[in-house]
Amino acid sequence: MVVEASCLCGFCILQIDEEVAKLLELKARLGGDDGKHQFVLKTAKGTRDYNPKQMAIREKVFNTIISCFKRHGAETIDTPVFELKETLTGKYGEDSKLIYDLKDQGGELLSLRYDLTVPFARYLAMNKITNIKRYHIAKVYRRDNPAMTRGRYREFYQCDFDIAGQYDAMIPDAECLKIVYEILSQLDLGDFRIKVNDRRILDGMFAVCGVPDDKFRTICSTVDKLDKMPWEDVKKEMVNEKGLSEEAADQIGEYVSMQGGMDLAERLLQDQKMSQSKQACAGLCVVFDLSLARGLDYYTGIIYEAVLSQAGVAPVSTEAQNGPPGEESVSVGSVAGGGRYDGLVGMFDPKGRKVPCVGVSIGIERIFSIMEQKAEASAEKVRTTEVQVMVASAQKNLLEERLKLVTELWNAGIKAEVMYKKNPKLLSQLQHCEESGIPLVAILGEQELKDGVVKLRVVATREEVDICRADLIEEVRRRTSDAS
Amino acid sequence: MVVEASCLCGFCILQIDEEVAKLLELKARLGGDDGKHQFVLKTAKGTRDYNPKQMAIREKVFNTIISCFKRHGAETIDTPVFELKETLTGKYGEDSKLIYDLKDQGGELLSLRYDLTVPFARYLAMNKITNIKRYHIAKVYRRDNPAMTRGRYREFYQCDFDIAGQYDAMIPDAECLKIVYEILSQLDLGDFRIKVNDRRILDGMFAVCGVPDDKFRTICSTVDKLDKMPWEDVKKEMVNEKGLSEEAADQIGEYVSMQGGMDLAERLLQDQKMSQSKQACAGLCVVFDLSLARGLDYYTGIIYEAVLSQAGVAPVSTEAQNGPPGEESVSVGSVAGGGRYDGLVGMFDPKGRKVPCVGVSIGIERIFSIMEQKAEASAEKVRTTEVQVMVASAQKNLLEERLKLVTELWNAGIKAEVMYKKNPKLLSQLQHCEESGIPLVAILGEQELKDGVVKLRVVATREEVDICRADLIEEVRRRTSDAS
Repeated sequence: MVVEASCLCGFCILQIDEEVAKLLELKARLGGDDGKHQFVLKTAKGTRDYNPKQMAIREKVFNTIISCFKRHGAETIDTPVFELKETLTGKYGEDSKLIYDLKDQGGELLSLRYDLTVPFARYLAMNKITNIKRYHIAKVYRRDNPAMTRGRYREFYQCDFDIAGQYDAMIPDAECLKIVYEILSQLDLGDFRIKVNDRRILDGMFAVCGVPDDKFRTICSTVDKLDKMPWEDVKKEMVNEKGLSEEAADQIGEYVSMQGGMDLAERLLQDQKMSQSKQACAGLCVVFDLSLARGLDYYTGIIYEAVLSQAGVAPVSTEAQNGPPGEESVSVGSVAGGGRYDGLVGMFDPKGRKVPCVGVSIGIERIFSIMEQKAEASAEKVRTTEVQVMVASAQKNLLEERLKLVTELWNAGIKAEVMYKKNPKLLSQLQHCEESGIPLVAILGEQELKDGVVKLRVVATREEVDICRADLIEEVRRRTSDAS
Repeated sequence: MVVEASCLCGFCILQIDEEVAKLLELKARLGGDDGKHQFVLKTAKGTRDYNPKQMAIREKVFNTIISCFKRHGAETIDTPVFELKETLTGKYGEDSKLIYDLKDQGGELLSLRYDLTVPFARYLAMNKITNIKRYHIAKVYRRDNPAMTRGRYREFYQCDFDIAGQYDAMIPDAECLKIVYEILSQLDLGDFRIKVNDRRILDGMFAVCGVPDDKFRTICSTVDKLDKMPWEDVKKEMVNEKGLSEEAADQIGEYVSMQGGMDLAERLLQDQKMSQSKQACAGLCVVFDLSLARGLDYYTGIIYEAVLSQAGVAPVSTEAQNGPPGEESVSVGSVAGGGRYDGLVGMFDPKGRKVPCVGVSIGIERIFSIMEQKAEASAEKVRTTEVQVMVASAQKNLLEERLKLVTELWNAGIKAEVMYKKNPKLLSQLQHCEESGIPLVAILGEQELKDGVVKLRVVATREEVDICRADLIEEVRRRTSDAS
């Protein structure tokens, strides 16, 4: 390359006319005045920035989740943030109204992705993939009513793990539940429960309760609201808005209040009416919450949802008051959910070829907000960088020497910083270390340069030792082996 | 939680009525038929999916870049994918027409971010931050003419590193150049050059060439096209479209053909006309390419751009024919660029308060496409998972035992897989290992279970050894210490 190293490590800096600084300032002041200052400074409704502290927490959570996905042998893919509008059409039932459309600027009609599942199905059909175990971590978009304090946003992350392929019954399904269990345990979010149900049981239940077939999906999405509204309101919606008969609604009410383990399975199997529905019987396998319905249209078999039962998590506690009937512990809402969707890929395949799929989505935003509170509560502060050593000086006119040393450290892979001042005060250099948790300071002075040493200061203890310059890199590595 | 471990590790699976599988199939076939199969299966124009192999390469490149940013002590932030439309208005000059707007669905007018720099400036002004060194890796959106084979997309990643704050001249600027140098060297992309120029020199040059002040920016964005069009066309655009005088254009032509090191700086300082422009003299510091202009309006000082000079990189070679004048080596186009923008934050501050900034953006998509070619060319194939061991069996009815063992491995943090079949053929299990590069197979049989051992097979050598079950985890770790 043409730029000499000298330019990069600071020699030429010293040649620069002070003029530059003045001119930059002048230019800047001029530059700014054509800017318009009247408008509102904000992010779009229902969205937020992540500051460095939030990003540090986010990185930690993602690492836990990704290592679980990798442990289970998942590959990863990525898809564009927007899809052809028609790709999303007819996949989300009543939720479709929440899709963000792009403005027609000529060319294709586009929409922002609403989840990662439909793009995944489109990807499989488009590339004729019949077997894959993949995870996908990306942002999705819903023009929903935001409740940011509860971690409900219009732009939010989803962490999806899905298994596509024709396999023996319930084996991939069980691995998805195992993954939810591993991730929620490792994130150490306190007690949680995984509610499990099956769309075929719900359909069977609706049938025996006298719900007309063409009303199954719409009644299903009303039942799904049980974790947000009390039963009375859910019933009202069924009867008044969706035209279901009083008594059909009441019968549904009885079933959805049932929860339990194998005992419930038994009870259901013995239940006069339910046992008439062959379809319902087939789905009986694990632990149930008959109030679990899931909003989305595309599920065809097992469905599940994980809720934290940990009390006293402020941001979502308001939601707990009107939890579903029979919910004894204080719920902070769903943090993971998913199920089997065997019909979705077929909707994209020209010949309607099926690719059975089952998957789970981790509701990461709620987990973030819980983690953030924990961090706020805890004593030790979150570091937002991993800097191991600050190169400092107590004397004037050593910028060039500081730049030389920090370059040596960078080239050795040490995370290091230097202040962007010609003659910074030692105090302000040490203060920066205190604030950002940098453990070591490498101090240079005329004497040290003469003796070929560096004064290494431990910020916590203020202990200082002279290190032979040739040994500095090893010494820094030794003292920060964890951070590096 | 309520779901018993047994459900998760496969006991109950064995109890399930075969009914389930049949019903799933039936349900799926029915479920699919309401799907509409006529429409085009594609991603939006100028966008692409990343398949697992591409993701593996992407992860590798990101890790290199992020570790460089962290080595230099940068924090990271994230901002929403869309901003209020007015936030982007008046920041990009002629490029503004390439911004994606969202449809007005009631509420705010929104646009997809066009780069990461304007959102960064908005973030600083909004949070009154006057000092930060941050990196931001995210996708940006431009309704540009895509050239996907050359890595030019409408949705593409940017990797930005910026230093905000009032510091001594050129010190942060030099670190940005150092970072470009480190990243491009470590990615091992062959020779590259970093062209450097200064907006103040360009403005000085325009002044002495007789370009009217109000035409500086628009002429600037024409000069920027020199790396895409031959000089004749650039001149035509200046004269015919932008109404510049024939002779002014010719004078610009002389200057922009100059390139070199300190010698050029000298020549410029001695140059009769240039030396009249105090402004131009102030910017003279490093190595120059006077044809470098950068498209964006907001730069106020030093600007730079890195180009690979490596010949024979197919996808972009077409671009090389009409490189800028004086470009001797075959250019594959810009892979990094940036500069100083001291006015931008002030445009967002109600009181117009300045926050001087300098930064660099790595053009990662082009780097991806080069890396992908390299991978295609090279012999050893890219692994898309990190699975260390496959739990297999040669005999029937051992699903439960396979699930038990793989659960033991997962709980120990080993990356492990099992086939989702009740009775898979040993051959197909081994084939899966060959295809996806899984190094070890843990084989279970009646005999092994009786003896409390596992047959560990090395896929590459086909060597098989019996390992005491208690020692399996250690043995797998030992044999895959690099992959784990």
